[in-house]
Amino acid sequence: MQVQQNIKLAVDAVVFGYQTNHLYILLVKQRYGINKNKWVLPGGFVLDKESLDDAVARELQEEAGLSVNYLEQLYTFGDVHRDKRGRVVSVAYFGLVDPNKFNLQADTDASEAQWFLLGELPTVGYDHQDIISLAEKRLSAKLHYQPIGFDLLPKEFPFSDLEHLYKTILGKEIDRRNFRKKMLSFGILEETNKIKKVGSGRPAKLFSFNNQKYQELLKGGFLFEIKLV
Amino acid sequence: MQVQQNIKLAVDAVVFGYQTNHLYILLVKQRYGINKNKWVLPGGFVLDKESLDDAVARELQEEAGLSVNYLEQLYTFGDVHRDKRGRVVSVAYFGLVDPNKFNLQADTDASEAQWFLLGELPTVGYDHQDIISLAEKRLSAKLHYQPIGFDLLPKEFPFSDLEHLYKTILGKEIDRRNFRKKMLSFGILEETNKIKKVGSGRPAKLFSFNNQKYQELLKGGFLFEIKLV
Repeated sequence: MQVQQNIKLAVDAVVFGYQTNHLYILLVKQRYGINKNKWVLPGGFVLDKESLDDAVARELQEEAGLSVNYLEQLYTFGDVHRDKRGRVVSVAYFGLVDPNKFNLQADTDASEAQWFLLGELPTVGYDHQDIISLAEKRLSAKLHYQPIGFDLLPKEFPFSDLEHLYKTILGKEIDRRNFRKKMLSFGILEETNKIKKVGSGRPAKLFSFNNQKYQELLKGGFLFEIKLV
Repeated sequence: MQVQQNIKLAVDAVVFGYQTNHLYILLVKQRYGINKNKWVLPGGFVLDKESLDDAVARELQEEAGLSVNYLEQLYTFGDVHRDKRGRVVSVAYFGLVDPNKFNLQADTDASEAQWFLLGELPTVGYDHQDIISLAEKRLSAKLHYQPIGFDLLPKEFPFSDLEHLYKTILGKEIDRRNFRKKMLSFGILEETNKIKKVGSGRPAKLFSFNNQKYQELLKGGFLFEIKLV
């Protein structure tokens, strides 16, 4: 192809993790280059023969030893001066992991990989703070119209954990009774036979998310919607 | 930058136009290359020193003589084999134009530019049908939670035009009374002093969308939401 173009293509990922009332973001410390020893989002250049989705999955595996249950495209960042080394356009992804995957393993371009509390992020390189801010907005918005909260919880959880997750991410109190009633009304949450002792209270029943049921409902035009006033 | 990468970056745009109960998409006929004389979405390679937004605006101007009121990123298409000439990743945009801009002027890479009825699209080159399908879904979804319908109407319009627009794009009947009540309840539609004779009926009042009011409401947490059962 006779096209003169001097633009490189990268992928970057904002991966959220949730554990006991706290929301985390995964960052890696750059091993090389102009941002050496700075914290940045995991990511890197796309290989010629891999799709964008494959590229971001590979980078997460290489730089943090992480495989992610939920990944979707967030936005493509293409400002001319976003990277001092030259023109780099980055396809940013948005990911959620369950809390059992909190063991990280840095390698290749990353010297460290670490979960940071959302409120306590270090200064990050490039325009990655913009990417993180957009991902936060997307996460808050999606909680209202897609059952993505379950990707941040273990397979089985007490109902109060789901409630705390919404409260934590949205940063506000929620009407517990209405929330529970609404959540259970969809028919996509199942009671298991198991119970778990949480804190000093009564043992709580464990629930699990029935994704198959959700997919079936979707085909029939079902709309997941949680409104929190 | 020492990165070996053989990937080109392009932008493509799905631009919707609406006129009297019909929804249109803008296509251009390729003047050169392997898809010569085929209809495709307007678009092309990004220049080294322009942002992605600037690239898509430039391509629309060059290939169709069109400036678009509403443009947003849709999705980035990066499958390895989407272009037979080599690896091309395309950042797809989603655009809406008001019906006064139906005069097109093809130039540069396009030998023709034309509006096609959504139900009567020709076979399009590359993976552009996938891009169009995604844009249609985005448009239908957005009508429910963002007042984008107004970008497809003239500045002043009879209320029935807005109703027809929703009916046309969503492809279903809507409850007229509820729709009108809900739309007017937001306070973002203003009655003008003008009236217009539509068909054989009584002259109808003209309305206009108050975007400034909408932006103010947004800051206060206002949620535009139209539910059509």
